[in-house]
Amino acid sequence: MAASAPSSQREIRRRNLSRVLYAVAEPGPSSRAAVATRLGLTRTAVSTLVDELLRGGLLTEQGPTPPDGGPGRPGTALALTDSGPCGLGAEIGVDHLAVCAVDLRGRVRAREDVESEGRSSEPGAVLDRLRGLVDTVAAQARGHGLSPAALTVAVPGLIARGTSSVVRAPNLGWRDVDIAPALASAGASSGSASGSGSRSASSSRAATSTQPGTGTRPGPEAGSSPLPITADNEANLAALAELWLDSGRVPRDFVHVSAEVGIGAAIVLDGELLRGTRGFAGEIGHVPVRPDGPPCACGGKGCLEQYAGEWALLRAAGAPVEGPRDATLAALRERAAAGDERALRALQEAGTALGLALAGTVNLLDPGALVLGGVLARFAPWLLPSLERELTERTAAPGAPPDLVVSGLGADGPLLGAAHAAVRVVLDDPLSYRTEAAPG
Amino acid sequence: MAASAPSSQREIRRRNLSRVLYAVAEPGPSSRAAVATRLGLTRTAVSTLVDELLRGGLLTEQGPTPPDGGPGRPGTALALTDSGPCGLGAEIGVDHLAVCAVDLRGRVRAREDVESEGRSSEPGAVLDRLRGLVDTVAAQARGHGLSPAALTVAVPGLIARGTSSVVRAPNLGWRDVDIAPALASAGASSGSASGSGSRSASSSRAATSTQPGTGTRPGPEAGSSPLPITADNEANLAALAELWLDSGRVPRDFVHVSAEVGIGAAIVLDGELLRGTRGFAGEIGHVPVRPDGPPCACGGKGCLEQYAGEWALLRAAGAPVEGPRDATLAALRERAAAGDERALRALQEAGTALGLALAGTVNLLDPGALVLGGVLARFAPWLLPSLERELTERTAAPGAPPDLVVSGLGADGPLLGAAHAAVRVVLDDPLSYRTEAAPG
Repeated sequence: MAASAPSSQREIRRRNLSRVLYAVAEPGPSSRAAVATRLGLTRTAVSTLVDELLRGGLLTEQGPTPPDGGPGRPGTALALTDSGPCGLGAEIGVDHLAVCAVDLRGRVRAREDVESEGRSSEPGAVLDRLRGLVDTVAAQARGHGLSPAALTVAVPGLIARGTSSVVRAPNLGWRDVDIAPALASAGASSGSASGSGSRSASSSRAATSTQPGTGTRPGPEAGSSPLPITADNEANLAALAELWLDSGRVPRDFVHVSAEVGIGAAIVLDGELLRGTRGFAGEIGHVPVRPDGPPCACGGKGCLEQYAGEWALLRAAGAPVEGPRDATLAALRERAAAGDERALRALQEAGTALGLALAGTVNLLDPGALVLGGVLARFAPWLLPSLERELTERTAAPGAPPDLVVSGLGADGPLLGAAHAAVRVVLDDPLSYRTEAAPG
Repeated sequence: MAASAPSSQREIRRRNLSRVLYAVAEPGPSSRAAVATRLGLTRTAVSTLVDELLRGGLLTEQGPTPPDGGPGRPGTALALTDSGPCGLGAEIGVDHLAVCAVDLRGRVRAREDVESEGRSSEPGAVLDRLRGLVDTVAAQARGHGLSPAALTVAVPGLIARGTSSVVRAPNLGWRDVDIAPALASAGASSGSASGSGSRSASSSRAATSTQPGTGTRPGPEAGSSPLPITADNEANLAALAELWLDSGRVPRDFVHVSAEVGIGAAIVLDGELLRGTRGFAGEIGHVPVRPDGPPCACGGKGCLEQYAGEWALLRAAGAPVEGPRDATLAALRERAAAGDERALRALQEAGTALGLALAGTVNLLDPGALVLGGVLARFAPWLLPSLERELTERTAAPGAPPDLVVSGLGADGPLLGAAHAAVRVVLDDPLSYRTEAAPG
């Protein structure tokens, strides 16, 4: 009945191909019959879709189906391929860069981490170095028979909604940096991205191109296949990692709070990120907790970050703020474990400030759970008592406050979230990958 | 391709009937051709749907179409009926009860307001009185040829999500009161709700029934047609009124803050309310603004309500808290207008507290606008300077903070929102109304 039938047909096919991929991904290998039952589609329809996905190199067959495959003759078990497309995730940290490749089954197949002087380097130099790292990981992935299909970059800053432009990243000292052009040809092979995967990627940096501003679609350049590049806030990606990789522990509505140098939150509603009108939602680090408290770089006073941010915490504990982060944080953890009074008091005050900001958040949003990630997860044993006290005392609604979950992903949340977001670019739109991998 | 085709067919028909109603409602009278263009449906499909809505008494024809009706021969202009179903809205206030009837065109056709001793009366007595008021307004509506189709009740308290149960309404002193059973047959005629509309409703209270807990569906009782009853938080309904009645001024993402005796917020995202996991979102009155401030009934300390709630404001201004609200508030307004120092200081401090809570909200949610409603709108001239100062100073994202809009609906927001929500019960599901109005 709709006017635009032809494009709708293609949309329906695209959506159904994607649904089949997710149906196979979530419970693991399944027969065609099991997929049909799960999706409420006919066996015939599913067979057609599956054949297309097999031809496109996104699904493989693994021999006889397991006994829970449903009624009818035993079918062949379907699985997502581990030798087709992969997602590349990158993280720009204050003192490190990291890149990894994750296959369609969700396994990390290649990874590189390096130290970086993010705070004192020019954005261009940081992005050049990151591009090199992406190329290295992409070449490793190709060596494992994988074909990089998309790149997502986690940034500790505000990204304008629907763009790859970092409007502000105070802890990096960045302002209005568009990362897509700088990374344009990163990770791309110099020819078409065929499924063979054994081609070296070392020459891929030659084909620099002018990526469009949004960076979410591959460019039309003949003879090269630049990856679609997406930038997202690190707190957003860490929350998505929690949802995607640890979904048994978090409900589909939750608030994820994480600290690296700054503090950020991500609000997930029914499994989707709340991004905000301009893309700037989740700035819990600048919720005022003590209106007359110390001034903050944002222009406000007494922001949460002034009590529970990594630098504030180190200062309050009398620990050095400069120097290698990992060693400094490990030393603070040891002092807390040994009962050092100043360290314990600093952590207790950080927990109180977190409890104040989270109590306000709970009263506003009524989330199903609160998740602590990043550095906060590492210090949870010392933060939780005062945090939970404030939360319980200040939650207005009847009943207990939402569950507090300590993330098991630690510092890897943003990087894994970025790589899985890139994998989902393929799962969400299988047609675009096939077009790229097998043109015509 | 879907397994459950028959139910899907009915769903598609229901949705398309609803889309036609909204397409006619929003821009005013339109031809069938214009509706077809607007919805991307064929002229034939729209004609079939329109015929069904004309037979069901939801649409009427109004003579030749206006010149902007699109190409082809001039058609007949379609309009929503002003003599078919209507929505009933009710408001339970701390010191008043109100009920109104709104027709499909959005016009208020009947209304009753009475004073009430909500704070000192038993819930049963308040609800009995409200039921009488609903019956009176329903009878007036029938006298205008209208047929009440649904009832929505605005309550100043927490409603458990998906139920009609008021879990807590501190300013009424209510706890665990299910309003649907108490109002079960309110506003219903004793026979089937035919379109004639002239039947007296005075006997409708005889048919008491055991309404199901959720109260959102009419019961199956033969020979009577109890209205579907929905309860919602007053702040939620005030925000929806703003969205539906004043949509030119507010974007589809905004936060609405209103005060009557308490302070509540409603968060609207892409035109939909964020309700929260348990239905308790929007409790901005209990966001801590000064952690060591005065104790609050919620168990917390220094909540926004302790600075900007109506009682807190009156106390700070040295005005009496007891007595008739309207007169007390009018007197405070006069003192402020005359430059009374204590009144101005109280309002300035309330504005500061609002600015603190809203700055946190803006940093968390990045809304497109902030709307001040209820008593806050009435005192806007004296609240805004300090409110805006805090907001500007404490908004972390670059650029100006979101627009501040002062509601033009005043104290009527919750009541109008309730009546329009009831109208939308019909617009959203035209089949349910037809079934009730013309069984078989």
